[in-house]
Amino acid sequence: MNLTSRTKLRRRPDRGSYDSASIHAILDDGFLAHVGFNMNGQPFVIPTLYGRDPNESKLYLHGSAASRMLRELESGIPACLTVTLVDGIVLARSAFHHSMNYRSVVAFGTARKIEDPAHKAKALQTISEHLMRGRWAEVRGPNDAELKATSVLEFSLEEASAKIRTGPPVDDEKDYDLSVWAGVLPIFTVTGQPVPDPRMNNGHQAPEYISAAFKKRC
Amino acid sequence: MNLTSRTKLRRRPDRGSYDSASIHAILDDGFLAHVGFNMNGQPFVIPTLYGRDPNESKLYLHGSAASRMLRELESGIPACLTVTLVDGIVLARSAFHHSMNYRSVVAFGTARKIEDPAHKAKALQTISEHLMRGRWAEVRGPNDAELKATSVLEFSLEEASAKIRTGPPVDDEKDYDLSVWAGVLPIFTVTGQPVPDPRMNNGHQAPEYISAAFKKRC
Repeated sequence: MNLTSRTKLRRRPDRGSYDSASIHAILDDGFLAHVGFNMNGQPFVIPTLYGRDPNESKLYLHGSAASRMLRELESGIPACLTVTLVDGIVLARSAFHHSMNYRSVVAFGTARKIEDPAHKAKALQTISEHLMRGRWAEVRGPNDAELKATSVLEFSLEEASAKIRTGPPVDDEKDYDLSVWAGVLPIFTVTGQPVPDPRMNNGHQAPEYISAAFKKRC
Repeated sequence: MNLTSRTKLRRRPDRGSYDSASIHAILDDGFLAHVGFNMNGQPFVIPTLYGRDPNESKLYLHGSAASRMLRELESGIPACLTVTLVDGIVLARSAFHHSMNYRSVVAFGTARKIEDPAHKAKALQTISEHLMRGRWAEVRGPNDAELKATSVLEFSLEEASAKIRTGPPVDDEKDYDLSVWAGVLPIFTVTGQPVPDPRMNNGHQAPEYISAAFKKRC
């Protein structure tokens, strides 16, 4: 990864890393990004799904061809893409040393619109498989009109940093004697039982890959 | 809430709302915001905790006085604060109609630094109680040096919109005959068993308010 003044962590550089493996691991564990861009000097932050091809150092974004965000991004303006996974609340003995355990990636770059329909369909498959492996093969794939109505962008991960905090609280030495419960409250993202569409035939069981989709995140 | 061209939803206005009650309900259910701002034309998106005083239409942000984000924000530059809660993956019969169930708030405004130490301490309490009600009363509160090392900002919610999707997939009429499992995979944020700090006395049980903190989110 390139490292410039905008990527280099100023606060808590001990929590930072810039290697691709750390960055990719966080991106592969998440599925929701917050994308920042400017319109007329006003910053916008919009949540969006993404997909990462394991063989490529880029992310795919998609949405309606009418999306304001995608139309702005595809013009090549500077963007920032952030993914944050919260792992726990760090409960210290003092208010001051409370913290979060988390893994986050902040990536800077520009997006490029994918025009070729075959490449577009492949990128949509990557987003789908990133979110839920096995789904793409089962559903009706996009037809020409749907492909046309969908914008797909690639966002190159040339400049990115990861920030990670793990472990127990770190209190001031004199506070360790206080009779305050200290530790970590773990936070997980989990899935419930799949809820069938009321318009589906009764008795159609949800395939195994649906419940398996998020197991790695529990 | 004020409504201007930057706040008004262009995509899927049917999913939008601008009333304070909808916006506050989402903000009260979440705890992590992604804040967007510019430095030299480059957008930054940084994750941060926040607190909302139930009686006020503003959010509090905090961090190290050395934080780049807080130092930029307190100069009064335009900012965007986004909170996203993911409730489920919407599995349609066609790839095209896949979606997410979610609740999000996008707020535009500027931040203002809180200088008065008593107001600052009160705002920190609001952030702490927002994340975990009951914690503030138990821990050692901030001393003068800690207050000085902490920046606290208030972000006014004058211009904000909420966007919400709920319910089953909506497929093309002809696709309802396909033999594809369709419905929603619910997603929850849950907590695990509190993990005691290894440096704490054995047998010190985690108070009830710790496990209760996120129950409303499950």
